[in-house]
Amino acid sequence: MAAACPPALAAAGHVSEVRLWQRHLEMARFGATAKGGVNRQALSGEEIAARRQLVAWGREIGLTAYHDAAGNLFLRLDGTAPALAPVLTGSHLDSQPTGGRFDGIYGVLAGLEAVQAIVAAGVRPRRPIEVVAWMNEEGSRFAPGMMGSEVFAGLRPLDAVLAVTDAAGTSVAEALRDVLAAEAGTVAPRPAGPAPHAFLEAHIEQGPVLEAAGVPIGVVTGIQGVRRYRVRVTGTEAHAGTTPRAERRDALLAAVRIVDRLQAEADLPGVMFTVGLFEVKPNAPSVVPADAYFSIDLRHPDDALLRRLGERVAAVAAELAPPCTVEVQEIARADALRFPEDLCDRIAGAADRLGLKHLALPSLAGHDARQLHRICPTAMIFVPCKGGVSHREDEYASPADLAAGCRVLTECLLDLAETAHD
Amino acid sequence: MAAACPPALAAAGHVSEVRLWQRHLEMARFGATAKGGVNRQALSGEEIAARRQLVAWGREIGLTAYHDAAGNLFLRLDGTAPALAPVLTGSHLDSQPTGGRFDGIYGVLAGLEAVQAIVAAGVRPRRPIEVVAWMNEEGSRFAPGMMGSEVFAGLRPLDAVLAVTDAAGTSVAEALRDVLAAEAGTVAPRPAGPAPHAFLEAHIEQGPVLEAAGVPIGVVTGIQGVRRYRVRVTGTEAHAGTTPRAERRDALLAAVRIVDRLQAEADLPGVMFTVGLFEVKPNAPSVVPADAYFSIDLRHPDDALLRRLGERVAAVAAELAPPCTVEVQEIARADALRFPEDLCDRIAGAADRLGLKHLALPSLAGHDARQLHRICPTAMIFVPCKGGVSHREDEYASPADLAAGCRVLTECLLDLAETAHD
Repeated sequence: MAAACPPALAAAGHVSEVRLWQRHLEMARFGATAKGGVNRQALSGEEIAARRQLVAWGREIGLTAYHDAAGNLFLRLDGTAPALAPVLTGSHLDSQPTGGRFDGIYGVLAGLEAVQAIVAAGVRPRRPIEVVAWMNEEGSRFAPGMMGSEVFAGLRPLDAVLAVTDAAGTSVAEALRDVLAAEAGTVAPRPAGPAPHAFLEAHIEQGPVLEAAGVPIGVVTGIQGVRRYRVRVTGTEAHAGTTPRAERRDALLAAVRIVDRLQAEADLPGVMFTVGLFEVKPNAPSVVPADAYFSIDLRHPDDALLRRLGERVAAVAAELAPPCTVEVQEIARADALRFPEDLCDRIAGAADRLGLKHLALPSLAGHDARQLHRICPTAMIFVPCKGGVSHREDEYASPADLAAGCRVLTECLLDLAETAHD
Repeated sequence: MAAACPPALAAAGHVSEVRLWQRHLEMARFGATAKGGVNRQALSGEEIAARRQLVAWGREIGLTAYHDAAGNLFLRLDGTAPALAPVLTGSHLDSQPTGGRFDGIYGVLAGLEAVQAIVAAGVRPRRPIEVVAWMNEEGSRFAPGMMGSEVFAGLRPLDAVLAVTDAAGTSVAEALRDVLAAEAGTVAPRPAGPAPHAFLEAHIEQGPVLEAAGVPIGVVTGIQGVRRYRVRVTGTEAHAGTTPRAERRDALLAAVRIVDRLQAEADLPGVMFTVGLFEVKPNAPSVVPADAYFSIDLRHPDDALLRRLGERVAAVAAELAPPCTVEVQEIARADALRFPEDLCDRIAGAADRLGLKHLALPSLAGHDARQLHRICPTAMIFVPCKGGVSHREDEYASPADLAAGCRVLTECLLDLAETAHD
């Protein structure tokens, strides 16, 4: 019956759940941790090995490998109209220090599997399709992350990225030189060309929604906005036994008041409020702290609500800090974004045609898709992960769900690349 | 008119404000910090030098130097009835890492000055008078402190103290060997003898009461009780962007709830409530903390109130920790103590006779007097310190106040040692 299928469904039928799963296991060797997770830092030896493996798999099925000056790695399937803007899909190979086997790398391996299925089905797209591994999404070695996609989208100058150094003092420029040198024989500089026709990123959800609903496909409506703050409360060091409360300027107690009020105000549906970093000085049991320093990470898909809550940070801090003083710094602000409805509809339609249940949901984490959204129609496909757990060594997604997401991706890629009936 | 004075007042008249002040300045050279403070750790080279200076001053006026196996240093003025239990006075020479020029050392130098005044006045006490420098009161190098007085009072075995090591791995036994060796020629092992007849400790107040009242002499009624806790809240590490609040076990927010409730319940007159140490893990801005660890230091002169507040720590923690778990450990408990009224009356009487205003107040900090109180009648004399500041490099007490406290001490020492009229 395969001949009667539309080409896209025929291609999706060539997606191999077993091969996709085995490639995840093989990739997990590069940076494997004792507890079954992955520590594969951007531009590290482990990532060089993972890139080499990826290029080898791509070449086996006739893809051409390119890298650009920012270290983004591309595997290209030529189209019948090679001058047309390519359809891009992918994610990243780097991980958190105690990361899992799926965050990022799934989007790259799903892209490769989709292209392999298209090739195996004998389907020829008009537009080129490129599988991309963006450089340094996680930002755990070189901060902040999203470097490759930011440079690609023209949102950050290459020079600024190259100058960033890791904790050991190694610059991105130096680490990147090693990566590009290691690939000199097999990977060519990516030729200049038009901006992408579209970008699709497959990813594990990193949240509990799909698993709880028993649905394999998440149609990502957008990415929630985020605001990040650093708050420094300054008081006066004092003897814990002899300084009466009325004469104390206790930075810890002021910080506690501020955090407790802000968490209460942020206790609204869908609001993510996190104080992940919290430090006091001198941090001695019998000394009233003179200094408390903490982070606030605030996220929500609705920009208006996020702005309102964000404005409360400085207001609440100023109200509750006295007799201490306080300084609030907004260190990051990314507005919420909505992916184009047309693309979301294509993903939903593909899932329907493949008989897969789907569900619309926002992405609560940031992704490279945030940057690509600025230069071309962009969307994301989520698959469930166990317990909603990510950025942990026990991160898990089932072979069946990974394959389901890959089938939807395959059909969407072909849809966007327009199949060539000749 | 000196011949008409009672002997004690005659001796107090020989207290030299200038000499006492100059000795503070000379001692401040041993461990001097750039900001005018003192860093003189227990059993360090700086303390050895300070002890050598103290012994030299003592020998100039005919005192005999002794040390015991715990490293306590004694300067003895013989009495006319040398077999009687001695009157002890003193404090400690060691300091906080960024300590001041008066905490501890004032009590030692005031004792020396008092004995020197007694000698200069030609007054002969019946009982011996000994000036003592207790080993390691502060506990900043070897923790916990009060080692010398605890061993002297039989509250802690010498072996347990000797086994304690500092951050560099050096044991008290090793450090003490150096100290005792350095003094081998000039300081003899203290002979066994009866328990002290009484102990008096002069000290700066380390609080603001005397300065605010414009009173030079504090008659210390006792030492407030203290309870110290360590609280560990355990939650689950989670992604700050993707984990809904309902599914979080945020150790930081639970700790904040607990601290905020306890500080509110402890907001009562005279209660000292301090969270000086506070740490979260993994302490990363975009990760919900899995672990929060903090100290609670609770003090008050009333044991019943202190017990009631102390019992609230575990109760409030258990109530507010969920969905996190919590573990509360009481790591120290010292009941409030009251010095004997008779001794306090003697101090007040001496101040009256010297025409010095005095005021009764509890000590909010712990002192070696806490241990001596267990084995003999004990009391303390406070003098004002600027701004109530202590354990800081800018700690300050005026020459006049230091001398006033010393005059009261002189009269009390003679009072307790009974003057010999022959």
